[in-house]
Amino acid sequence: KDSYVVTLLPGDGIGPEITAATKIVLEALCEKCGFTLELREALIGGAAIDAANDPFPQESLDQCLNSDSVLLACIGGYKWDNNPRDLRPESGLLKMRKEMGLFANLRPAKVLPQLLDASTLKREVVEGVDVMVVRELTGDVYFGTPKGIDIIDGQRVGYNNMIYSESEIDRIARVAGDVASKRGSKLCSVDKANVLDVSQLWRDVVTDVINKDFPSVELSHMYVDNAAMQLIRWPKQFDTIVCGNIFGDILSDEASMLVGSLGMLPSASIGESGPGVFEPCHGSAPDIAGQDKANPLAMILSAAMMLQYDLDRAEEAKMLEDAVEAVLDQKLRTPDIKQDNDGCKLVGCREMGEAVASVI
Amino acid sequence: KDSYVVTLLPGDGIGPEITAATKIVLEALCEKCGFTLELREALIGGAAIDAANDPFPQESLDQCLNSDSVLLACIGGYKWDNNPRDLRPESGLLKMRKEMGLFANLRPAKVLPQLLDASTLKREVVEGVDVMVVRELTGDVYFGTPKGIDIIDGQRVGYNNMIYSESEIDRIARVAGDVASKRGSKLCSVDKANVLDVSQLWRDVVTDVINKDFPSVELSHMYVDNAAMQLIRWPKQFDTIVCGNIFGDILSDEASMLVGSLGMLPSASIGESGPGVFEPCHGSAPDIAGQDKANPLAMILSAAMMLQYDLDRAEEAKMLEDAVEAVLDQKLRTPDIKQDNDGCKLVGCREMGEAVASVI
Ligand SMILES: CC(C)[C@H](C(=O)O)[C@@H](O)C(=O)O
Ligand SMILES: CC(C)[C@H](C(=O)O)[C@@H](O)C(=O)O
Repeated sequence: KDSYVVTLLPGDGIGPEITAATKIVLEALCEKCGFTLELREALIGGAAIDAANDPFPQESLDQCLNSDSVLLACIGGYKWDNNPRDLRPESGLLKMRKEMGLFANLRPAKVLPQLLDASTLKREVVEGVDVMVVRELTGDVYFGTPKGIDIIDGQRVGYNNMIYSESEIDRIARVAGDVASKRGSKLCSVDKANVLDVSQLWRDVVTDVINKDFPSVELSHMYVDNAAMQLIRWPKQFDTIVCGNIFGDILSDEASMLVGSLGMLPSASIGESGPGVFEPCHGSAPDIAGQDKANPLAMILSAAMMLQYDLDRAEEAKMLEDAVEAVLDQKLRTPDIKQDNDGCKLVGCREMGEAVASVI
Repeated sequence: KDSYVVTLLPGDGIGPEITAATKIVLEALCEKCGFTLELREALIGGAAIDAANDPFPQESLDQCLNSDSVLLACIGGYKWDNNPRDLRPESGLLKMRKEMGLFANLRPAKVLPQLLDASTLKREVVEGVDVMVVRELTGDVYFGTPKGIDIIDGQRVGYNNMIYSESEIDRIARVAGDVASKRGSKLCSVDKANVLDVSQLWRDVVTDVINKDFPSVELSHMYVDNAAMQLIRWPKQFDTIVCGNIFGDILSDEASMLVGSLGMLPSASIGESGPGVFEPCHGSAPDIAGQDKANPLAMILSAAMMLQYDLDRAEEAKMLEDAVEAVLDQKLRTPDIKQDNDGCKLVGCREMGEAVASVI
């Protein structure tokens, strides 16, 4: 296959600019490597609320499902922050994950030698860090029922159900086992099994799956509070981490700080079959939107993950990653990764995209 | 009042040694300041399981409730790790918190100038950090029902209820407002209100309480994933943080890494009335138990919090804190806070306790 349909979701804030920069890069890659990407835009987030009063309209969902893959920029902004929850941009994201069955979220945090000093952690602590967080994405307290805010005995009570079934844990454990076996073959499962029943089941099922079907993967378990410490104390002890939705939300963001800037971090959300969604970990940064200050590299690296996981073009994925390292070696820096006196050249979003394209 | 009954819970692992060192310090303080502490030991954790087949026997609970305050060392160990959950040391801790109504957990993370290099974060990031995490301790997914592991449609399903009532949120918000108003008057409430109903109620109630009854406190809100990042990115932005039980568990442990060693960190667990429980944040470190290598300073600083919060002796609390800084100025270090080539003297647990006592 040498022609693919990709849905582009530019979203809000800096979304359109980083999408434009990523497009330039993908066009260069297609030309160079002789394949075609048909890029079709669709609406999500605040842009979709404004246009269709729905943060993820059925039309966008259909279009995503009819693609080979989906590339998402970022969503959200002050404008929609006080909307009722189902009319907030985030709800579009949650709906997309659930409806597309994207139960596995892969978030690599790899420290690049060019950006060693960007982190607030000491150089010797982050040098060489290469952690992959595998986060379950369609279960847990995010989607559990019953939930709500009720009046009980004359006062309001808010509740959400932290819940996992065996099959939900089984399938994410298999993704994690597979990912770990292609990396350092060390998997750390994070839970709170000393307190929570749901974590006890999590631990039991993960243990069964990995021991039985991934015998070459070395499995360990860690409580979530300890994991939050160990990620800072000595991150190099980790290779692959697997955890539930809410613990993964917290720990993957924490892990991103090892790299220094969210502006460099891609993610992949994938399901059993069908297209995945690839997106940078950063938000929509409405304060710098439209000013050509955004860093497009996380979205470009997300496109690399798309090539690897959805389009089965590992070689082209590697070319993109190498091109990103090359522009960093050329000492080009967007504001978020520029340090005082680092001898680097400050560039805008568009120029950064063009630089990556011209390396290719 | 110049005579107090204090229940001592030495617990497991290094517990007995750090308790002994703390006793020496408290005896010196009593002598110096002319008041009496009647120290009565009781069982908790693994020690209580071994002696009475219950991680927190009724007798211990009664004794705690009949004291002016409770000083706990630490619990847990490999020996009991595979017991059924209700016969594990941690269950004793949870039972103690619930039965004694200890709904507020105060965990300061203050970076001491003497230990600036102990953290894995850069000096300029941690220098001057002084964060107080106020964690709700008797609600949330820790104690919510329904909970369990059931068979549903032929497969196991594990669940715990993340639940807060208005009155539970109200009372922890008041503690946090009070704590913040005695510190920098800046309170950051952490939740996941963009996804969870329980967090939406949390945010609404905290906002009402602080705006209405703590007008001098500047309130902000932050999502838990962002808070996990910001604590590492720029911890000096925080003064007081308030959050629910599970988010507080994770964030307070993460915050402790700003200080470098858990061996320096005290905590207070308090209720509406009655005795509080004061304990170091570190665990029982079974691997170094009985070797005189443990750091007693976190327990000594916990005793300082006890003097301040339960015994209303702020002056004596300050004396203890100053004495701890003085021994650090004398360049005495237990192994956990000793750095290579720091020019400091390595001491054991007992010697560290004696040094603090002799400063007093
Ligand atoms: C925006 C929010 C709903 C979302 C989440 O919590 O999953 C985000 O934090 C993320 O990690 O993608
Ligand atoms: C031991 C465990 C049950 C406990 C908790 O999660 O509350 C501990 O981590 C703590 O923070 O005191």
